[in-house]
Amino acid sequence: MKAEIISVGTELLLGEIVDTSTPFIAQHLADLGIDVYYEATVGDNRKRLTEAIRQAEQRSDLVVLTGGLGPTEDDLTKTLLAELLDRQLVTDGPAQAKLDEFYTATGKPKPTHADLMSQFIAGADVLPNQVGFAVGMFLTTENCNYLVLPGPPAELQPMFEQEAEPRLVQLVTGKPVISSRVLRFFGIGEPALEDRLRTLITNQTNPTLATYAKRNEVTLRITASGNDAAEVAKQLQTAIDAVLARVGTYFYGYGDDNSLEQVVVGLLRQRQLTITAAESLTGGLFQSTLANVPGVSAVFAGGFVTYSATTKEQLVQVPATTIAANGVVSKETATAMAQGAQRQLHTDLAVAFTGVAGPGGADGHPAGDFWVALALPNGTVQTKQVRFARDRNLVRDYAVKTGLKMIYDQLAR
Amino acid sequence: MKAEIISVGTELLLGEIVDTSTPFIAQHLADLGIDVYYEATVGDNRKRLTEAIRQAEQRSDLVVLTGGLGPTEDDLTKTLLAELLDRQLVTDGPAQAKLDEFYTATGKPKPTHADLMSQFIAGADVLPNQVGFAVGMFLTTENCNYLVLPGPPAELQPMFEQEAEPRLVQLVTGKPVISSRVLRFFGIGEPALEDRLRTLITNQTNPTLATYAKRNEVTLRITASGNDAAEVAKQLQTAIDAVLARVGTYFYGYGDDNSLEQVVVGLLRQRQLTITAAESLTGGLFQSTLANVPGVSAVFAGGFVTYSATTKEQLVQVPATTIAANGVVSKETATAMAQGAQRQLHTDLAVAFTGVAGPGGADGHPAGDFWVALALPNGTVQTKQVRFARDRNLVRDYAVKTGLKMIYDQLAR
Repeated sequence: MKAEIISVGTELLLGEIVDTSTPFIAQHLADLGIDVYYEATVGDNRKRLTEAIRQAEQRSDLVVLTGGLGPTEDDLTKTLLAELLDRQLVTDGPAQAKLDEFYTATGKPKPTHADLMSQFIAGADVLPNQVGFAVGMFLTTENCNYLVLPGPPAELQPMFEQEAEPRLVQLVTGKPVISSRVLRFFGIGEPALEDRLRTLITNQTNPTLATYAKRNEVTLRITASGNDAAEVAKQLQTAIDAVLARVGTYFYGYGDDNSLEQVVVGLLRQRQLTITAAESLTGGLFQSTLANVPGVSAVFAGGFVTYSATTKEQLVQVPATTIAANGVVSKETATAMAQGAQRQLHTDLAVAFTGVAGPGGADGHPAGDFWVALALPNGTVQTKQVRFARDRNLVRDYAVKTGLKMIYDQLAR
Repeated sequence: MKAEIISVGTELLLGEIVDTSTPFIAQHLADLGIDVYYEATVGDNRKRLTEAIRQAEQRSDLVVLTGGLGPTEDDLTKTLLAELLDRQLVTDGPAQAKLDEFYTATGKPKPTHADLMSQFIAGADVLPNQVGFAVGMFLTTENCNYLVLPGPPAELQPMFEQEAEPRLVQLVTGKPVISSRVLRFFGIGEPALEDRLRTLITNQTNPTLATYAKRNEVTLRITASGNDAAEVAKQLQTAIDAVLARVGTYFYGYGDDNSLEQVVVGLLRQRQLTITAAESLTGGLFQSTLANVPGVSAVFAGGFVTYSATTKEQLVQVPATTIAANGVVSKETATAMAQGAQRQLHTDLAVAFTGVAGPGGADGHPAGDFWVALALPNGTVQTKQVRFARDRNLVRDYAVKTGLKMIYDQLAR
């Protein structure tokens, strides 16, 4: 099956917005085994949008339109497609009720073209919008299939995953149920992860496995289709077990919106363990990353940024002799920093970071060299040395994630 | 003049990479007054790339091709365009020498198709690549103009700005010199900035002014063209003066790659002033943002994350009575935090943040309410109250930037 994605909007065409919806759709279509051969962006212009749709219908089996579903006169995707297909627009009752309620509740005047958002082309499946007001559509004619989606990623993504994907799976496989699971990994690169999963990736068509490189981590999406939910769930679990048997050491959680800090704060709260940090290399980034997570104050009261040798001594009592004997970037200094922070704030855990962010080496260490120390409730300290020769901010991010993964490994096993 | 952008690459088509090069080109073309009507993405495929180029030539005056200039067999943009135009590929001497030197110096084996990177279509202007090896091209035929650029943003952006833009300006205006300047603002939104600059934006065609919303800040690009560098420089300066007369209070620096933290660390180093912080709301983000800047250790030795009331008392000696009388989110607590941090580390300046990041209010304050305090060398403390009802991480980022801007305003005036 051949597909084409047309994104509609002058603000996209002029580069005022970077289009992340098209790559999102393209990735998901690829996962479903649908070949995307063309992508086009057109402005809010009748003539050029007509051209793009006509051309797409001729050469593709599935035309995905995204954008141009809003309440202004510029938003012409639906009305134009209805004209081209010579069909009527009809109102979706639930969507119209939701829209009317909103304007009644807020007392705002309803824009002239607002009702267009709750209309759909006669004969199409309505795809409800969980986030906004504009409904999407899935429509099959004699010549072609059309999927019409809103432009904003926050509206498009849930509509695609919950409403469009099941219909596309049916279209492609004849199998009615699809489900996918995202696994998250830290400490292994995308090529290495693919290598370790090579036999799983190449030998299977259902489920399919696809890896994605993120900032200093990798995600794996496993997608299965089948005749019922139980069958699909079983396929997914079998695949997950096979993956974790190979690369489980690097795994830390599930889900596209998940993060190491969310998982770690969740574990700390569940175990009722408090934490602090003494940060040199990372300059506050570890603590600030923890503070990304709402509710972190239950386990985190504060900590130290000890950027210089002096503050290491003054704030977390690293002995000057330890630094003199071993240098600032050393196992011994990292250990003393973690123990000092733990002692100062009477926490269960304490993490310390010391190293060279770069650019350029320091104290006889190349940029990207660092130590992480994790002081545990029983008084022992775990340490880890890492050499990660990348740019300054990638090094600091990698250090923070190394610390989080050390905590995860302690608490999750 | 009508333009069309074709981006080439299977990894773009499948959504494995988000295409930021096309929006970059589109923005710059719009700045030059060139109308972009179509954008297309095609994979590394002869037939479909041929189709896309043929169609673009027919309906546009300028065809911009990006991507597919690399050293692998898949990279076919140059060879295919040469075939379609019925012209030869010839070698650019300097580019070939640079390529050969690299393989000699590193001892790596040269890939079979590597030399293609230093070739160009006979009759084209060669656009040198400052970052990588693949040269770009600008070519005018009887029917159309072609601009061929590498795909990776790091290679494309300098080539576009330094090599392509002057040629496009000549093409459009007949004027040979173009120059632009980016001004950065914090504390004013994009719509408000546009309103304040309305007469400048609407009444002028040379220079042109364009605003861009960034994360919690706004940039303004002023672009002027003329017959020589002195004329253009004078036009730019006149426009900059007019802009700063209207919105100078929000201005903090020039340049696309600049940031508040770079400007502030630069000023601190120049004035030889040291700084520390006590962070509640921001949880270490202010210090970690300072630490983004190489060389910050000359002015920043460390500081405190004081997330709970207890650590405010223990680490920076906020009197318990101050918190009891005024609450954690108060001018008095922020002031005591800044003074305590300054006293502890004997710095010239100290910043403190306290507030409610959200979601949900706390201590009788809604999410997004915060105080920033800045302790100065003369013993006085400046404070600022902000209400910024956005999501948690935007609030924290906005607080950090508020603190940086307070320091900038102290040091730059």
